[in-house]
Amino acid sequence: MKTISIRTLYGMPESYVGTVTVAGWVRTVRDSKTFGFIEVNDGTFFKSVQVVFEDHLSNFKEIAKLGVGAALIVTGELVLTPGQKQPFEIKATSIEVEGECPPEYPLQKKRHSFEYLRQIAYLRPRTNTFGAVFRVRSLAAYAIHKFFQERNFVYAHTPLITASDCEGAGEMFRVTTLDPANPPKNEQGEVNFKEDFFGKMASLTVSGQLSAETFAMAFRDVYTFGPTFRAEKSNTPRHAAEFWMIEPEIAFADLNDDMQLAEDMVKFVINYVLEHAKEEMQFFNQFVDKGILERLENIVNADFGKVSYTEAIKILEGSSKKFEYPVFWGCDLQTEHERYLTEEHFQKPVFVTDYPKEIKAFYMRMNEDNKTVAAMDLLVPGIGELIGGSQREERLDVLLERMKELGLNEEDYWWYLDLRRFGGTRHAGFGLGFERLIMYLTGMTNIRDVIPFPRTTGSAEF
Amino acid sequence: MKTISIRTLYGMPESYVGTVTVAGWVRTVRDSKTFGFIEVNDGTFFKSVQVVFEDHLSNFKEIAKLGVGAALIVTGELVLTPGQKQPFEIKATSIEVEGECPPEYPLQKKRHSFEYLRQIAYLRPRTNTFGAVFRVRSLAAYAIHKFFQERNFVYAHTPLITASDCEGAGEMFRVTTLDPANPPKNEQGEVNFKEDFFGKMASLTVSGQLSAETFAMAFRDVYTFGPTFRAEKSNTPRHAAEFWMIEPEIAFADLNDDMQLAEDMVKFVINYVLEHAKEEMQFFNQFVDKGILERLENIVNADFGKVSYTEAIKILEGSSKKFEYPVFWGCDLQTEHERYLTEEHFQKPVFVTDYPKEIKAFYMRMNEDNKTVAAMDLLVPGIGELIGGSQREERLDVLLERMKELGLNEEDYWWYLDLRRFGGTRHAGFGLGFERLIMYLTGMTNIRDVIPFPRTTGSAEF
Repeated sequence: MKTISIRTLYGMPESYVGTVTVAGWVRTVRDSKTFGFIEVNDGTFFKSVQVVFEDHLSNFKEIAKLGVGAALIVTGELVLTPGQKQPFEIKATSIEVEGECPPEYPLQKKRHSFEYLRQIAYLRPRTNTFGAVFRVRSLAAYAIHKFFQERNFVYAHTPLITASDCEGAGEMFRVTTLDPANPPKNEQGEVNFKEDFFGKMASLTVSGQLSAETFAMAFRDVYTFGPTFRAEKSNTPRHAAEFWMIEPEIAFADLNDDMQLAEDMVKFVINYVLEHAKEEMQFFNQFVDKGILERLENIVNADFGKVSYTEAIKILEGSSKKFEYPVFWGCDLQTEHERYLTEEHFQKPVFVTDYPKEIKAFYMRMNEDNKTVAAMDLLVPGIGELIGGSQREERLDVLLERMKELGLNEEDYWWYLDLRRFGGTRHAGFGLGFERLIMYLTGMTNIRDVIPFPRTTGSAEF
Repeated sequence: MKTISIRTLYGMPESYVGTVTVAGWVRTVRDSKTFGFIEVNDGTFFKSVQVVFEDHLSNFKEIAKLGVGAALIVTGELVLTPGQKQPFEIKATSIEVEGECPPEYPLQKKRHSFEYLRQIAYLRPRTNTFGAVFRVRSLAAYAIHKFFQERNFVYAHTPLITASDCEGAGEMFRVTTLDPANPPKNEQGEVNFKEDFFGKMASLTVSGQLSAETFAMAFRDVYTFGPTFRAEKSNTPRHAAEFWMIEPEIAFADLNDDMQLAEDMVKFVINYVLEHAKEEMQFFNQFVDKGILERLENIVNADFGKVSYTEAIKILEGSSKKFEYPVFWGCDLQTEHERYLTEEHFQKPVFVTDYPKEIKAFYMRMNEDNKTVAAMDLLVPGIGELIGGSQREERLDVLLERMKELGLNEEDYWWYLDLRRFGGTRHAGFGLGFERLIMYLTGMTNIRDVIPFPRTTGSAEF
């Protein structure tokens, strides 16, 4: 079908003066006896096009009665309208109704609550807010690929189904084809997972990191970007059962290289979105989160700070701020602590490094003090932790010792340990929850509103 | 760590004459009494760098004894070597051993079978073949994003966990947190999925298409690119339980628009890979699939053919070729039929269109003959079907009629049907199995060899 996108018209309206055909959906219709206006949006651009229609159209009456949401194909004359709110409009010579939309259409022109729109998630991308959110999501995803690919990182599709025991216990979804009512049993009367699809119990992954490390030992610089899962029953605005994660992993690299990569990536993605979603970002700034544009621009221009965990604890202890959770060396930083550090003390994004080993994962590299590990969290104003990463323990003896302390079974990790036996190198990486990034970029405050069809405890609609 | 990638050096060796530091892994070591050569590969480039080391190095003896696979940091003088096999080499002034590699390292310098390498999938990206495969996979993934994003398509992350009944029965993995041994029962003594994580039975998706259609009705042009799952117990070189799929969906578009999009996309991806993986593609052409380069170049330059299913059946019936499976109007085309059409009859990629409704899905648009639907399969030489797509049935009454014929339950599809009630439009889309594309681009013949860690019946290693 030969139509032109509304994005293209807005890009260079003067070169389309003359006859054009656009296709899209009705946002509003206003009519008087002999003429009327339709706002048509085709989803390619945040703004709509104003179509003027007059009673010389054979289907004038039908058009005047069109409902919000109807699909149209409009042919007409594009005329520039300098000095008016929109830079051009289309005077229709024909309007074809591609698909009608009855009055019971749930998206009538009025403000709907986000809660209500979640119940009609299959329609909400047609609204200004969610149209903008999901376009930003798409652009940010591409920006991430572009960032890593231009730096020659290899994109690794790490597996989602895992039968490996080394991802940590609990809070995983089981993946199975066994009969739920009558699973096969073994001689001990236990469920016999040998008869399950993969010949053993399988789950949905919580992280691609360990697999990504195998690729980093081959390609040096790699990243994953794919779905991960948590079977956490937390019903909060920040938890989803299915979400996307970015996990780069770099070889011959230490914690400083890791932080530099994280800083470069965050700035790149923000810049990309600011440049490619100008209208959407202005909308968020005006209607969703006043000041978000300034906050993002500040981040792009800031040199991110660095502070050790130990130093950060001193700063928090020395502050006059009353915290809900007590601060002491060894405590896990809470969002209130993180936000104080980045918003009030440093007033810019800041990396907190070298956390106590007790509150971090077994694979993080032990520092010389034998008390802290080479971990880093990136804290940003308005949200707290955005990224968590570390240098990985590449020394086989140190790693084995740490696993023993934690009661981890060496055999479950044989291939992960082999990476330290066969040409192991210093290496580092981090994880970025993609939804948290989108919340950060848009000012949306509920993770359910940045995922097309969110999956949370008790809910997997559509 | 300040090192320079081997890709960068190969890109412009003349500008790096002088002192450089590279980091990478030993591919081979040859030494005589007073000097030696090491091939170092850092994974950023298909080719290795030749490092010359001499006995003035304090650790000369250690270096000479290095095993294949050891990780090194080499500083030295880059000198151009015109007329030799490699355009430059590095005369080492220091070689630091970052990680040793003992003789039991499974990847000694010899040819290993693909079957053997599958058993050490965590190491195989370090080999020439799999290094090339997974780099091409990464580049092809990026090319797909680039193609769609440059055309302003919105990338939609459709959900992987689905509780929707509308994806078709059987062959799906169940996702659960219920106790496998003692699941809760309801009053009828059946497993009570109300107590499962999502409050009902949930599975892993087999396609993002239906969700993508909801987005196309908002953004016009959208695509998904994510994992999909099949619990098929087929143990063949073409089946995997977890694989990635690309599914674009375009509104205000018919089957011709769909075919044009598919042709443009295939050509774009091939061109991108030929341009960005020259060394890898030459390697495949020489060692994996002789003639693959010529075949791919032909495709880029061909105008894809079009033939209706009915016409294709006549061609097959009229050919002198003996087929294993009988040909008759109404039969599903087998790979042997597809390959005859594309390789022998048309000698180029060809779209077969308008298949009998009985062998296609319920959502495909009914043609006027009421016997065929507006479907298309893209057949390519060397493989057969690469892409399957269709125009979707946008007429509510026709769709409902077809669902009734097939015994599908209207209520299970309420939101999908609503898309036809609320401003529905002509629309179309297709699906491309990403692994099949990678097999096509590389000449690899087993799907297990184009997935980093393949999941198949009985196997979910690493």
